[in-house]
Amino acid sequence: MVNWNNMDALASFQELQKTEKVKLPQVMAGESGAERAKKYSVPMAEGMVYSYAAKQVDDKVLEGLAKLAKEAQLTEKFKALYNGEVINTGENRMVLHHMTRGQLGEAVVSDGVNKRDFYVGVQQKVAEFAKKVHAGEIVNGAGERFTTVVQIGIGGSDLGPRAIYLALENWAKKQGALKMEAKFISNVDPDDAAAVLNSIDVAHSLFILVSKSGTTLETLTNESFVKDALKNAGLDASRHMVTVTSETSPLAKSDDYLAAFFMDDYIGGRYSSSSAVGGAVLSLAFGPEVFEQFLEGAAQEDKLSLNEDIFQNPAMLDALIGVYERNVLGYPCTAVLPYSQALNRFPAHLQQLDMESNGKSVNRFGEPVNYQTGPVIFGEPGTNGQHSFYQLLHQGTSVVPLQFIGFKNSQIGTDVVIQDSTSQQKLCANVAAQIVAFACGKSDDNRNKNFEGGRPSSIIIGDQLNPRTLGALLAHFENKVMFQGFVWNVNSFDQEGVQLGKVLAKQVLAHETDGALKVFSDLLNI
Amino acid sequence: MVNWNNMDALASFQELQKTEKVKLPQVMAGESGAERAKKYSVPMAEGMVYSYAAKQVDDKVLEGLAKLAKEAQLTEKFKALYNGEVINTGENRMVLHHMTRGQLGEAVVSDGVNKRDFYVGVQQKVAEFAKKVHAGEIVNGAGERFTTVVQIGIGGSDLGPRAIYLALENWAKKQGALKMEAKFISNVDPDDAAAVLNSIDVAHSLFILVSKSGTTLETLTNESFVKDALKNAGLDASRHMVTVTSETSPLAKSDDYLAAFFMDDYIGGRYSSSSAVGGAVLSLAFGPEVFEQFLEGAAQEDKLSLNEDIFQNPAMLDALIGVYERNVLGYPCTAVLPYSQALNRFPAHLQQLDMESNGKSVNRFGEPVNYQTGPVIFGEPGTNGQHSFYQLLHQGTSVVPLQFIGFKNSQIGTDVVIQDSTSQQKLCANVAAQIVAFACGKSDDNRNKNFEGGRPSSIIIGDQLNPRTLGALLAHFENKVMFQGFVWNVNSFDQEGVQLGKVLAKQVLAHETDGALKVFSDLLNI
Repeated sequence: MVNWNNMDALASFQELQKTEKVKLPQVMAGESGAERAKKYSVPMAEGMVYSYAAKQVDDKVLEGLAKLAKEAQLTEKFKALYNGEVINTGENRMVLHHMTRGQLGEAVVSDGVNKRDFYVGVQQKVAEFAKKVHAGEIVNGAGERFTTVVQIGIGGSDLGPRAIYLALENWAKKQGALKMEAKFISNVDPDDAAAVLNSIDVAHSLFILVSKSGTTLETLTNESFVKDALKNAGLDASRHMVTVTSETSPLAKSDDYLAAFFMDDYIGGRYSSSSAVGGAVLSLAFGPEVFEQFLEGAAQEDKLSLNEDIFQNPAMLDALIGVYERNVLGYPCTAVLPYSQALNRFPAHLQQLDMESNGKSVNRFGEPVNYQTGPVIFGEPGTNGQHSFYQLLHQGTSVVPLQFIGFKNSQIGTDVVIQDSTSQQKLCANVAAQIVAFACGKSDDNRNKNFEGGRPSSIIIGDQLNPRTLGALLAHFENKVMFQGFVWNVNSFDQEGVQLGKVLAKQVLAHETDGALKVFSDLLNI
Repeated sequence: MVNWNNMDALASFQELQKTEKVKLPQVMAGESGAERAKKYSVPMAEGMVYSYAAKQVDDKVLEGLAKLAKEAQLTEKFKALYNGEVINTGENRMVLHHMTRGQLGEAVVSDGVNKRDFYVGVQQKVAEFAKKVHAGEIVNGAGERFTTVVQIGIGGSDLGPRAIYLALENWAKKQGALKMEAKFISNVDPDDAAAVLNSIDVAHSLFILVSKSGTTLETLTNESFVKDALKNAGLDASRHMVTVTSETSPLAKSDDYLAAFFMDDYIGGRYSSSSAVGGAVLSLAFGPEVFEQFLEGAAQEDKLSLNEDIFQNPAMLDALIGVYERNVLGYPCTAVLPYSQALNRFPAHLQQLDMESNGKSVNRFGEPVNYQTGPVIFGEPGTNGQHSFYQLLHQGTSVVPLQFIGFKNSQIGTDVVIQDSTSQQKLCANVAAQIVAFACGKSDDNRNKNFEGGRPSSIIIGDQLNPRTLGALLAHFENKVMFQGFVWNVNSFDQEGVQLGKVLAKQVLAHETDGALKVFSDLLNI
């Protein structure tokens, strides 16, 4: 029996608040620090490791977190989710994104359809289509091969697939696995579509229109933009477009598309990277085998998330430490800092994943909660950030918990030795140094050069950023956010907060406004 | 006589804390909202306007902010700064970035050199060089023209110039003013340089090495990377590189460069976009006339910042409202949300500008302050963000003040009419709608669909994003950050917080570590 209780109703949370706070500069110094660095880490999938040694926790706090995990029934709730319970209460939907990459529990059948079979079937359709495009069996009107794939989508249909594409683009080039270059059109700003269209050869481009409902204004507008461009180039748009949409959407049965790949209501946009939303563009760009590897990495990480023992469940542990930082230590933000240029848009994807999932003020029953929920998430790659906003992270008046990500090896493999070390070694040395600098600080009589330390961080370390480790990384964060939603007792799978703006924007365009909205509309010349 | 007092020592700040808080959903509704929207705005340079109607202020709060401005002597402090006082106390330096775009006060002479003449002279040298490159008078070893310019720099030598280039790239293409494509290499991650080098034709590329000290590890490493690539292509590196550096740097007199353009210690990295750091790459990319327009826009905005009346000084007013939000209302973050895809990296530049300047815990005399200083800054372009993290901004438990930016017209001018409106109109309708949605909210019996409102925002509106408006925008934010630093009594022009990480990274590379740092170094295979 699963009980959906608010966090502040849990005895373990009350207890946790009374636990003595850890002083990082003390515990992370000297031999104690070395011991923590050895002991406080959890294996992840694909040979990665999650180290929480520099987090503001100790055995007592961790014991409290383990109790919280148990009392909040995190494992049972995850089980309910993957076995098909209606976890997305607001929208009365199941939550099945894990099923795009594996079968974690019982078969889930909806309207007579086995959902795992459905997702696998769609991915097989995508794979066959991609193979035909790559083999020159599906070609443009002039019988020529497509060289570029362009995703038209926004939010979850954009950020995840884009971040993943950028993360693997150089890896794929190096492996000789880049089949097609990918581009992305998302914003309703006409300059977004116009700039992308100016940068490509439309005659050899295949466009993927991604909208579950088939009614997303930005996406439909950008589709028209693209169709105009194809028409102006004397091309038949229906030979250049496919769609990823739901079976019930107006796009599903249209003759305007070469193919339609289906998604359903049980996978939210921000959790759709491992569905056809990511699958179509990534299979076309890299080949379906590469996308398969990505799914396998995610599936391996999902399996770890089943573990009831928080010390063998990196996503759950990460989630609990985050709750401790947000609700006991009172830190309002978290920075995601990948030491990998290829992950330059990964923080933007996690920003959506986290803030859209857990930026809620009511619990899953629609009752206001009396505690803080999801933090603000932001981040940029290191070492770039070190020369930018790290100043505030080190010496500002706010403490910002940090989530580092680092890899031992680069993707391309070209490197240069300067002052006896490679760039890759310098990159890794910097992230190691930052962990200790943030935790321990350094006292200086000149207070301006003084570092108080006590700024918590974790790090995920992998051998190399590749499809498998990236899949594992993504699943880690998806599951972390899910577990945090369970602790906070919020529905992490709806997004009612995006509705009001849409309604008001329609009023502006219909000139049905008064008051301040009328004045702002006039100021903006609408 | 200028008095450098801590903010909490000011009577006007004490008074401000007692002012009654404004309830945005009330004051922004109906006729009152319309009046505020009409009244609460300040003209900016280049026909732009700063509207603060949806900020949590009213006439009483604004009166308090005017008193704070006066008691904190913001105008006098700015005057001291541009007249050459040593404002950067930590590093014992003047702060002269305004002088790259105008002469605001008295002549400032240092070591017998008139500084305005010096900056103008460097920019003239840059302009002449750029013109020769564009005219085919400076060519590669084979006598062919350069087509690409690559900036090698990090932090302030990267983020600002990169954001500005991206902001104007499509505008320039449309105007036929794009002389050379620009690329940027910043990260010590070897995949950054390798990917950029793989994407360009090195034989026709000109590289700009930007490092004031000539010792920035990332930049020197990436220079070697580039030199290797040039050598491997059988090219003479010295015919492909220029440098922007200080006259005393090891790079200044080297034969390795076609030309050296000088900067000095009085312009910090994050304030250097209007110096040769931005000037070289932007003049090469767009032509020196375009960079000149950018400087003029900035100069016009600087002049507005001289005004003692906060209602005629948008940067000062914006700064004061930010302080009110941080220190009286207690909001820890600010989001920058440009409704312009071209400004997609502008938030990252402002993140550095703001967080590196004011992320400090000690005042300008090195004494700890007892109040919060610079907030966390993050942001992404709208409408993209609406489909992502806006959920938390609308319905999360944290209130995040917002800074919108919008333009009436697009840059490229290609557009499409769907449902009776253009994409540009939809873009503008959305930002207008968001302001009111955040401020007023909307009650709903279903608490999950309820919007409490009360979430403050400002908006800067311009006709079009072009070199002049972009220059004005940049100066606005630079001056805003400067004024906030004055109120908080911190030194906004040093960055001691970046030092410790550098020191520890060197120890890692030299294998001179113990404790936790040794363990992390081993985990990362260094």
